[in-house]
Amino acid sequence: MNVSGVITITTDFGHKGPFVGVMKGIILTRFPRASIVDLGHDIPAHWPPEAGFWLSRSYQYFPKGTVHLAIVDPGVGTERHILVVEHDDHIFIAPDNGLLDPILGAAGPGEIFRLETERLNDFELPEASQTFHGRDIFAPVAAEIAAGRLLPQNTGPRTDDWIPSWIETPEVRAPGKVSGIVITIDSFGNLISNIDERLLAGMKEPVARLAGKRFRMVETYGRVLPGDYMALINSFGVLEIARAEHSAADSLGTERGAPIVVVDGDRD
Amino acid sequence: MNVSGVITITTDFGHKGPFVGVMKGIILTRFPRASIVDLGHDIPAHWPPEAGFWLSRSYQYFPKGTVHLAIVDPGVGTERHILVVEHDDHIFIAPDNGLLDPILGAAGPGEIFRLETERLNDFELPEASQTFHGRDIFAPVAAEIAAGRLLPQNTGPRTDDWIPSWIETPEVRAPGKVSGIVITIDSFGNLISNIDERLLAGMKEPVARLAGKRFRMVETYGRVLPGDYMALINSFGVLEIARAEHSAADSLGTERGAPIVVVDGDRD
Amino acid sequence: MNVSGVITITTDFGHKGPFVGVMKGIILTRFPRASIVDLGHDIPAHWPPEAGFWLSRSYQYFPKGTVHLAIVDPGVGTERHILVVEHDDHIFIAPDNGLLDPILGAAGPGEIFRLETERLNDFELPEASQTFHGRDIFAPVAAEIAAGRLLPQNTGPRTDDWIPSWIETPEVRAPGKVSGIVITIDSFGNLISNIDERLLAGMKEPVARLAGKRFRMVETYGRVLPGDYMALINSFGVLEIARAEHSAADSLGTERGAPIVVVDGDRD
Repeated sequence: MNVSGVITITTDFGHKGPFVGVMKGIILTRFPRASIVDLGHDIPAHWPPEAGFWLSRSYQYFPKGTVHLAIVDPGVGTERHILVVEHDDHIFIAPDNGLLDPILGAAGPGEIFRLETERLNDFELPEASQTFHGRDIFAPVAAEIAAGRLLPQNTGPRTDDWIPSWIETPEVRAPGKVSGIVITIDSFGNLISNIDERLLAGMKEPVARLAGKRFRMVETYGRVLPGDYMALINSFGVLEIARAEHSAADSLGTERGAPIVVVDGDRD
Repeated sequence: MNVSGVITITTDFGHKGPFVGVMKGIILTRFPRASIVDLGHDIPAHWPPEAGFWLSRSYQYFPKGTVHLAIVDPGVGTERHILVVEHDDHIFIAPDNGLLDPILGAAGPGEIFRLETERLNDFELPEASQTFHGRDIFAPVAAEIAAGRLLPQNTGPRTDDWIPSWIETPEVRAPGKVSGIVITIDSFGNLISNIDERLLAGMKEPVARLAGKRFRMVETYGRVLPGDYMALINSFGVLEIARAEHSAADSLGTERGAPIVVVDGDRD
Repeated sequence: MNVSGVITITTDFGHKGPFVGVMKGIILTRFPRASIVDLGHDIPAHWPPEAGFWLSRSYQYFPKGTVHLAIVDPGVGTERHILVVEHDDHIFIAPDNGLLDPILGAAGPGEIFRLETERLNDFELPEASQTFHGRDIFAPVAAEIAAGRLLPQNTGPRTDDWIPSWIETPEVRAPGKVSGIVITIDSFGNLISNIDERLLAGMKEPVARLAGKRFRMVETYGRVLPGDYMALINSFGVLEIARAEHSAADSLGTERGAPIVVVDGDRD
C-alpha cells in the first residue's frame, strides 16, 4: 500500500491540556511532512464504541493509505494489547478493547497485527510512561507507518484473537423488526443510532420507536416544520432521530445508549 | 487570481463527531497540499448571521487567494442555492441564506455565482446526501477551487439575486444615534456588536446603552480596574461591551441578539 | 539554531470566534509552509500559570527549533512587555506576566530578550490594535522567527528582569514534606499538581493530602478498581490525584488552585 502521509486522531482527551498537541509534536518530530487531521476528541471518556462507530463510518473519506489513530483507553498501563490493522487500503491503530470492532469484523484474514514494541528497536521508541501511550507508543508508531518506514506486518504477529465491542451489532431479529441503540449524539442534539440502512431494506414503512414515541421516516431535515420530529437515514448510512431546528436529545431527555427499535409500520 | 492553497472552514457543527474531520479528508483526497484552517465551529446552531459577521471581519488576515467555506445551513437538502463569491482577492462559498450578506453587500457586479453542480461533471462529485452537503458538495468544490483547477466563474451563472441577512445592518438613523445588536459573545464573555466604528465617527462622546445601563468608551481592557465595565472599539473595528477580568455576558445576563444603542453623550 | 518550521499556539481564547484562526491566517500569509499545532486554547481566562506549566512540560516533545507562542494576557494594551526566549533549542514568545516563569527560571544568561517592535521595521508589522496583540504582534513575530528570517537576539535587548509567576514553585520545606497546588484539571477530571517527582525522591512512602483526604501512590490508572482514588506520578512527571474511571475533581469538589501536601507516610 502507498501511504498518503495523512494521520487522523480520534480520542476522548477533550480539549483541556496539551495531550493531543504533544502527540502531534511527536509525529512532526519523526515525520515533518505529516498532514494531521483531528477526527474528534470529544468521545465520551472511556467509551470506546463511539470512537469505533465514527471511525468505521469516516475513514472512507480520507485518502487511501491514511493512518487512523484512535485512543480511548481506560486500560492504559495494564497488559491490554495494541492492534494494528491494514484494511480496505487504510491503516488503523487502537487499543485492543473493542474500539475497533466494526473494522475488525470486516477485516479479512491476515490484516490484523498485535503490536510488539520489542520488534521496533530500530525506531528508538522512548521508554513508555504508564499513563500516556498516546504520546509514547501510538504517535511514534503512527508516524513511522505514515512515513512509509514501518509496515503494519512488521509491527507484530498476525492475530485473529481480539476483544469484541461492549455493544452488540444490530441485526434483524424477527421479520420486520430491528433493535439498536443511540450510539452518539451530535452537536445539534440529533440522536444517531447504530442501525444501518441495509437492515431496513425489506420494510415497507419503517417506524422508529424511542423513549415511548414513534417516528416516521423522512428524507431530510428541511422537509418538516420547525419543531417536528423525524426519523431519517443520515449521511453516514444509519438511522437518526432529529427534531427540526431543535435538539432531539434535550427535547426527549434521551442519552447515549438508549434503545431504538424499528418496526415495519404495516405490521403493528 | 492566484490561489494560496489555504482553505478556511466556519461551521455550526461543534466539536462532537467527525463532521469537520471528514470534510478535511475529502479536501486532502482531492488536494493533498491544502493548508486547512478552522476559523470556528462554535457558531450557534442554525444562526448564519454570526458566521457572516466573523467571516467578513476575518478573511482579510488570510493570504490573498484563500478559499473560505462557511456552512450554517438549516435548509440543507431543500432547494436552497449555494453561492460562490470572488471578492477582494478571496473566494467565499456558503449556502444562500443570508450568511454571506456582509460580503455580498460589498461585492461588485459579476463577482457572485450560483453553484450548479451539473456544470461540474469533470470533477466527479459524489451523489450528494440529503443532510451533509459540507462533505458532498462544499468540500469538493472548495478543494478544486483552492487547487486552481476550478474557477469561480465556472461554478455556475452570475447572479445578483441573493437572500439578505435576518439582521439589519446598523445605520445612523438620527443625528448622534446608532442602533445595532449583540452579534456574538466571545469566550471571555465580551459582548461584541455589529456596530462599525465608522458609524460613531461624528460623535463627540459616544455612550453605549445595553440592558438598561450606560457604558463610556475606553481604549483597552487594561485601562480600567478589575470589575469595571467599559465600551470600546475592538480589534475587529466594532463596538464591544466588556468587563475587566470578568464576563460581561454573565454579569449583565445579556444574550446574543440583545439591542445596543449608541448615543452622543453631549445630546442626552 | 535551525528552525523546524513548527509553531505551537497556547491561549485562553477558547473556541468561540475566529481569534486563533486569524492568527494562523497571519502566520500563513508570512510563512506559507508553517506547520501550526494548537497546544490548547482552554487555559482559564487570565490565568497565565497554567499556560506556563503546560508549555514547560510539553515543548520537549516538539522538534528542536520550534517556536512556541503563549498568550494569556490580561494586560494587553497596557505597557506590559513581551519576552522572546531561546532556551534548550526552542523559542518561546509570551507576555511578561509570569506565564513563562518555569522556562525563564531554567534559562541561562543571555537567552531572554525583551521585544521592541521598533527594531522590526524591516518586517512591516501592522499598527497594533489595543486588544489583539496575538494577531498584530505575536503572530507576525512568530512567523518571521519560524521562517528563519528573524533571530531572537534581534527582537530586542537581552534582559534578566522579568515578572515571576503568581504561583510559588514547590520546594521541600521540611524533611519529608512538600507543598504545591492543583495547577490544572484535565478532561477526565484528574487533578494535576505542580509537584515534580524529583521532590519526592527521598521519601519512602509518599502520601498525598488534598481536601481532607489521603491518597497512596500507585503506578497507573488501571491498577486499582473503578471508583478507587489514587495518587500517581503522571506522564508529565508531576504528582496527580485521579479516580479510576471517574472524575476526581467532581467527586472531591476540588478546583484549580487547591493546596496539595505530600508527606512521607513513615513520619506521620
